[in-house]
Amino acid sequence: MSEKTFYPEYSSRYPLLITNFIKKPMGMYPDDEAIVYRNDDGQYFRLTWREWYERTCQHAHLLKALGVKEGDRVGTMALNHHRHLENIFATCCIGAISHPINVRLSLEHMTYVINHAEDSVIFFDEILMPFVELLYDQIKGSVKKFVYMSDKPGLPQTKIEPLYEYEALLKEQPKTYDWPLLDENSLATLYYTTGTTGLPKGALYTHRQVYLQCIHSLERAGNSVRLPDDPERPNRLVFFAVIPFFHIHAWGTPFMMVYGAAKMVFSSKYEPESFCELIQNEKVNSAVMVPTMLAMLLEYPEVDKWDLSSLTTIAIGGGALPLGLKSKAEKLFPHMRAASGYGMSETMAGVIGAVLKRDMENWPKEEIDKVFVKTGLPMLPAIDARVVDEKGNDVPHDNETIGEIILRGHWITEQYYKDPEKTATAWRGGWFHTGDAAKIDQDGYIIIADRITDVIRSGSEMVPTVLLENLTSNADFVLEATYVGIPDEKWGEIPMALIKKLPGMDVKEEDILTFLQKEGVDSGKITKWMLPVYVAFVDDVPKTSVGKYDKIAIRKKIEEFKAKAKQVRKV
Amino acid sequence: MSEKTFYPEYSSRYPLLITNFIKKPMGMYPDDEAIVYRNDDGQYFRLTWREWYERTCQHAHLLKALGVKEGDRVGTMALNHHRHLENIFATCCIGAISHPINVRLSLEHMTYVINHAEDSVIFFDEILMPFVELLYDQIKGSVKKFVYMSDKPGLPQTKIEPLYEYEALLKEQPKTYDWPLLDENSLATLYYTTGTTGLPKGALYTHRQVYLQCIHSLERAGNSVRLPDDPERPNRLVFFAVIPFFHIHAWGTPFMMVYGAAKMVFSSKYEPESFCELIQNEKVNSAVMVPTMLAMLLEYPEVDKWDLSSLTTIAIGGGALPLGLKSKAEKLFPHMRAASGYGMSETMAGVIGAVLKRDMENWPKEEIDKVFVKTGLPMLPAIDARVVDEKGNDVPHDNETIGEIILRGHWITEQYYKDPEKTATAWRGGWFHTGDAAKIDQDGYIIIADRITDVIRSGSEMVPTVLLENLTSNADFVLEATYVGIPDEKWGEIPMALIKKLPGMDVKEEDILTFLQKEGVDSGKITKWMLPVYVAFVDDVPKTSVGKYDKIAIRKKIEEFKAKAKQVRKV
Repeated sequence: MSEKTFYPEYSSRYPLLITNFIKKPMGMYPDDEAIVYRNDDGQYFRLTWREWYERTCQHAHLLKALGVKEGDRVGTMALNHHRHLENIFATCCIGAISHPINVRLSLEHMTYVINHAEDSVIFFDEILMPFVELLYDQIKGSVKKFVYMSDKPGLPQTKIEPLYEYEALLKEQPKTYDWPLLDENSLATLYYTTGTTGLPKGALYTHRQVYLQCIHSLERAGNSVRLPDDPERPNRLVFFAVIPFFHIHAWGTPFMMVYGAAKMVFSSKYEPESFCELIQNEKVNSAVMVPTMLAMLLEYPEVDKWDLSSLTTIAIGGGALPLGLKSKAEKLFPHMRAASGYGMSETMAGVIGAVLKRDMENWPKEEIDKVFVKTGLPMLPAIDARVVDEKGNDVPHDNETIGEIILRGHWITEQYYKDPEKTATAWRGGWFHTGDAAKIDQDGYIIIADRITDVIRSGSEMVPTVLLENLTSNADFVLEATYVGIPDEKWGEIPMALIKKLPGMDVKEEDILTFLQKEGVDSGKITKWMLPVYVAFVDDVPKTSVGKYDKIAIRKKIEEFKAKAKQVRKV
Repeated sequence: MSEKTFYPEYSSRYPLLITNFIKKPMGMYPDDEAIVYRNDDGQYFRLTWREWYERTCQHAHLLKALGVKEGDRVGTMALNHHRHLENIFATCCIGAISHPINVRLSLEHMTYVINHAEDSVIFFDEILMPFVELLYDQIKGSVKKFVYMSDKPGLPQTKIEPLYEYEALLKEQPKTYDWPLLDENSLATLYYTTGTTGLPKGALYTHRQVYLQCIHSLERAGNSVRLPDDPERPNRLVFFAVIPFFHIHAWGTPFMMVYGAAKMVFSSKYEPESFCELIQNEKVNSAVMVPTMLAMLLEYPEVDKWDLSSLTTIAIGGGALPLGLKSKAEKLFPHMRAASGYGMSETMAGVIGAVLKRDMENWPKEEIDKVFVKTGLPMLPAIDARVVDEKGNDVPHDNETIGEIILRGHWITEQYYKDPEKTATAWRGGWFHTGDAAKIDQDGYIIIADRITDVIRSGSEMVPTVLLENLTSNADFVLEATYVGIPDEKWGEIPMALIKKLPGMDVKEEDILTFLQKEGVDSGKITKWMLPVYVAFVDDVPKTSVGKYDKIAIRKKIEEFKAKAKQVRKV
């Protein structure tokens, strides 16, 4: 007999592949609605799982036709819609690497990540074509082909070439695909950091990592501690995917939703009116949002005219939820659970989350609320998290001693793309160093205390203060410059600059803004929303013993500085 | 710098180890009660997670002290209690192979599996010492050491040697253990089949396989479709582990319960009175049972004196739950969800289960009940199951055509221990052949018809005995019912029913026929030629060690049963 005896590939080593995620929706719910996409013109697109899957197969053929091979990087500059999801799945499942480009980076950083990734093809949205045109001359050396995704047929007039029309190409492809049985350790996705302390770094993830994030997170969600007044969990999740895919896999949600055959609702841009329309029309019952999105919703004057009662589960990420915002939001969504969490570009999705312990189930609401605003508990047993002092010793659980969060686990990136040096630094001693500072309380909950990395979290974006500081200090009238976030109900934090002028210089606070506009925004180094809202001229910027700007000391006197500051632009 | 750059072992290849299961209970609930064990004298033993974990560490040191090395097999002849669980975890986590011996096998088969496994040490219960003494001379060549586990101190008079006292040895060991970072493909457990068709075969499982079974099964349980009148899921599971560990990992439940930090309740032997006492005292809310256990409970005359209301979730495995038994049991447990499932020694735990699809959530109860007694849907995406005809083609979804179930997936055994030939036969063509016959209905649910070898072949037709058994057990005077073929010159085989009546019922053999005619033939569920020709009322239906009807034992005594039987219709 010439037959094989052992089949580990179908048993003990059956690979953990993103390809498998489509098995449950196609096996159990092929004719259920999978995706509803409302474009900015108010036009709706609807796909069943079968239809979406067939398009994904067609997409895989299309990638092959474009010459994409295993291991190639495929870039996307796109908002959230079925085409983007088709691209991510097809790219990963043929063995190429999906690279969703953060289109909110500066043009300089966008150019850098595309050239660094050496994306062989870029798929982009009609609405983002102006960016691609701006970048074109700098990236055409690396990127060999461009694919134009639009809700309307035809190709635009542009210098970008060669340019292909997505829907026209797709139509020609077969609707089934013989997916390869990949090694589970094949690279699947590439996400760049926001480059808060320098150039963006590319975090790589394998199929296995994405799979294990997905299954552990779904298990944790399904078996988490529930409170007596929690709403029933719906049997069919209708999930509003408002976090962009290019923000670290939208925290893993697209994979989780496909795995569970949830219905996904997309609206490309986040905008309160279409958000409300979709919640009402599609009976959305679950969403993940950043605090800013919630704030925009509360400011939207016509919010009361919509029936939002179906939306019973809102998870909050990307920054702490200010308590004032939380209580306003709870009037709109009485059953809302806003729980904090923690993750970063290097962790694929969340690794710490504010889940309850079961002995808390009968605690009073005020106490429960305090737990939900803590950063949370590590996702045991998949993720190990420690908070350690400078010698690497665990800090006591005293809710006071501050250390750095270090991590191990299934979905921590193993390496930065083409950067062994930064990889080695981050992974020194066999633990991934996050650069984030935290303390641990008596119940074992980790609480982010201060950001060693000094990031200001404004909306869903991170304002890279080191970049701003470096830029500002280029002005010939500036001696010292630092930036801190000051609390803001809508944005979470907004940037304030503390400036020590060169003696004898006759300048005004607005001059800082003018300088940054010219040297930063106009030249593509920063984007407009990074500009400081407040500028304070000070005699001295507080510093640590080693001469670094002391953000902790600054934050302690934040009100004092704000009182001295002048508001230089509207929020 | 001599430091490493990459740490795949703590990131992309962070191993899936049984060792990790202890992280959540020890990280979140170290002082919660973990285990309650009631011995046959009614004495209670209670351990917190910390206490149990410390004993498990001590057990690991003890194994080392006994000379157990990586890859060695460690046998147990034990019922369910903390010591047995300590043994399984410690053995796996030091890199040895846990071999729980099925003590309900024949002495011949027990001897065979111990010598075939070459267990280096055997841990056994006081109550099972007579077996060990009977086997001793045949196994002392392989087994070098014996450890005696008892609730009382001291060693008994016995020829077994060298013999060690478990609790005395344990006390001397340190309470922490530096667990090795094993390869996830290390072998962890060895389970032998019941050998219904020959000698038992040893199915091997790796750490990875156990881990992936656990996480997928917990995810499925947590996110399954719920019905409007389902009871609340308790935040703290109190699980009665009545299925012996030596029955294919008690279907994975010990691992799942440790992972989730559930409280586990043990009573060594299954016996209705202590079962009821523990449910009442410990407020047990979840259990997994075989149909026979339910039947025993229904026969127990004092069942009404206990408060069993906490027990809201009962999963049924090890055989189809006859509808008749189900409706009787529902009177006792109004919130009981008895869902069928399917697994075998070669699949570590369940691979197919009667879960609902979400569009069924508003179906009437009678229709839902019919779904729950189907074998179910494969555990997508972790397990692929097909039903194929003799040429390997999928059978149509017509609820009629019978084929064989074949499998692929994470927790299907890769191989039989030291038996490449049987491995190759089972895995022919890259699919594991179960030898079980089934059909598929229009909704895609698999329905077990029979063991391929148990089907009664009458004329050119196949009589699916499970269907007849389920139907017959609906009769309110029937407690147990099984069918076998008896040789017939004309038809090959003709069906005979073996019936155990409910106590005190005054019925005749012909009443079975009348019942089946009315409920089966007239309603189109079975055809006339499937009706039994002979009916025998018996005091007991022979069962295998796992509580299934033992067709082999029945066939051996077929003439004896036929002599007792009454012919109820002409052939």
